[in-house]
Amino acid sequence: MDRPDIHLLAVGTSLPGPAVDNATLAARFGLPRAWEQWIDTFVGTRSRHYAIDLETGERRYTLADLAEAAGRRALAAAELDPAEVDVVVMSTSSPDMLMPATVNVVADRLGVDGVPTFQLQSGCAGAVQALEVAAQMLRCGPHRRALVLGGDTSAKHFDVGMRAPDVPMEAQVNGLLFGDGAGAAVLGTGPAYGSPVLRGVFTRLVGRDRSPGQTVEWFSWGDRTMDRPPVTEDFKAVEESAPRMAAEALDEVLDGVGWKKSDLDYLLPPQLSARMTERVLEELDAPGAEPVSRVLEIGNTGNAIPYFQLEQVLPRLADGDRLAGVSVEASKWIKAGYALEMAAH
Amino acid sequence: MDRPDIHLLAVGTSLPGPAVDNATLAARFGLPRAWEQWIDTFVGTRSRHYAIDLETGERRYTLADLAEAAGRRALAAAELDPAEVDVVVMSTSSPDMLMPATVNVVADRLGVDGVPTFQLQSGCAGAVQALEVAAQMLRCGPHRRALVLGGDTSAKHFDVGMRAPDVPMEAQVNGLLFGDGAGAAVLGTGPAYGSPVLRGVFTRLVGRDRSPGQTVEWFSWGDRTMDRPPVTEDFKAVEESAPRMAAEALDEVLDGVGWKKSDLDYLLPPQLSARMTERVLEELDAPGAEPVSRVLEIGNTGNAIPYFQLEQVLPRLADGDRLAGVSVEASKWIKAGYALEMAAH
Repeated sequence: MDRPDIHLLAVGTSLPGPAVDNATLAARFGLPRAWEQWIDTFVGTRSRHYAIDLETGERRYTLADLAEAAGRRALAAAELDPAEVDVVVMSTSSPDMLMPATVNVVADRLGVDGVPTFQLQSGCAGAVQALEVAAQMLRCGPHRRALVLGGDTSAKHFDVGMRAPDVPMEAQVNGLLFGDGAGAAVLGTGPAYGSPVLRGVFTRLVGRDRSPGQTVEWFSWGDRTMDRPPVTEDFKAVEESAPRMAAEALDEVLDGVGWKKSDLDYLLPPQLSARMTERVLEELDAPGAEPVSRVLEIGNTGNAIPYFQLEQVLPRLADGDRLAGVSVEASKWIKAGYALEMAAH
Repeated sequence: MDRPDIHLLAVGTSLPGPAVDNATLAARFGLPRAWEQWIDTFVGTRSRHYAIDLETGERRYTLADLAEAAGRRALAAAELDPAEVDVVVMSTSSPDMLMPATVNVVADRLGVDGVPTFQLQSGCAGAVQALEVAAQMLRCGPHRRALVLGGDTSAKHFDVGMRAPDVPMEAQVNGLLFGDGAGAAVLGTGPAYGSPVLRGVFTRLVGRDRSPGQTVEWFSWGDRTMDRPPVTEDFKAVEESAPRMAAEALDEVLDGVGWKKSDLDYLLPPQLSARMTERVLEELDAPGAEPVSRVLEIGNTGNAIPYFQLEQVLPRLADGDRLAGVSVEASKWIKAGYALEMAAH
């Protein structure tokens, strides 16, 4: 084997502003007390962070701001100089602009230059797609160190001027589900004691003949009348499909590395909502693996999800520990997963 | 060497509607006759195609429409069944929506499913970035066949309601420079007589501490007042930098494969405008290589550029022929290039 092991050397994350809880949201939009209880029962997510000012709608943080902060933390944790980064891969569904790609703004701010940069347009499977592309760049290219970034600032799709009872249910639920944030990881080849090895990673479109479960519009100059909703969600389809797709993704990632569920020490499930994560965990049926979830406090951070989970679990990994992460993207239905192992020495 | 040769098996392209010449544009926006002469002198591009109806601004073709048509042609030319595609990589600066990524809509329509798909957010270097990612997927993954797609529908940034003298110079020039279109290529590993081999490909961000040469906004719900221009261009910076960057990119791609300029049979230059392509060709200074350019009739098609050039040159390649393609992206300043060789048998 001339293909080197790829190590996850470090992760970093960034959240904008203070946590916004359900009571604050309810008060802001004039929603009744019963709404809060409904949220608790059916969504479960308790708080999230927004890159906008909830009062004015003003953008307080760009995606580049968040990704820069996360990237800086990951590089510092990996003790890596920006000049040592050989390739940058970022994923997001909500770039700051169409051009330049946000990845290039972030690279510039971090002092990374003279290297290939890639930005994937993606949803909840995006972080795994970025991991897959970065791993492929390290596995057989001349590259040795990759900076992987992911994040979303979905709150800019909000209409903060809305007041109950004009707030459509979809907008209410999206505001609750999604939180803004960014994450970063440093991947490297070669021996790195104390860093887990990426044993496997896959993504797979499975949307043949299926309508999208989620759509997010961007509006161009010609669309400025905006006669269509910025975001649509087929919650029923997501609820029906996500647990099964997550279970299939876990099976596939385990098959790929030859592990059984009982080999897993940690399991990083999808983070659509707190309730959905509970349902997915049941379906994943890996009782021996400790679930690592952040959705309760930060919501669904889209392309940042796995970084927040990894940040929590990495310091706890002991020699020989194995973990699997699973993502499901409802947009056009994508399954994704990855496996990490703390190699014993 | 256990790394297989990667062959360019086929390309396909697609253009929307009829060619729109400068006289038609001038008449549409009420621009004077002198404008036409000015365009001919300083821009040189004679016509381009638009995915919108120039009278009403109505969108007649989506990016997915154009990419689907190009992809279908490339698959047919490669005599490849959609089920044989192992990975899809698309690049664009102008996706139809933020979610789902357009690549997944196109894959679905073409009957490609159950495989990884990636969509790069990118400008004029995007096609080479997609080629680089796809090549990396084939070079060391289990994948054998990649469908690579690229395209742009920039005309949707137009305000077709504008009349001279309200048309800002920037909008005039952008309308002339950019044309809509899409392209596709099929890459494969293993012996494929009569198909050129990808000898090298690279992309490189070189934007350290430099302002973007081009910005393109997307507008979210919160931005619906749209108090900023959708597109900005620093034409002076582009004019100063593009020829030099192209020359550096050609040197780098040739160094990478160990060729001299005199080894080249064909040269595929950047396609910003017809005049700029002329200037870049002078700077590239490879008199023995025949230039392959389409910008005169179709304008700058962004992420589709190399496909249109390759479509023209592929049928003319003889055993042993060598070609190099060069791209320059002004957004945050990216250099890119690739080298193909028709291996003699």
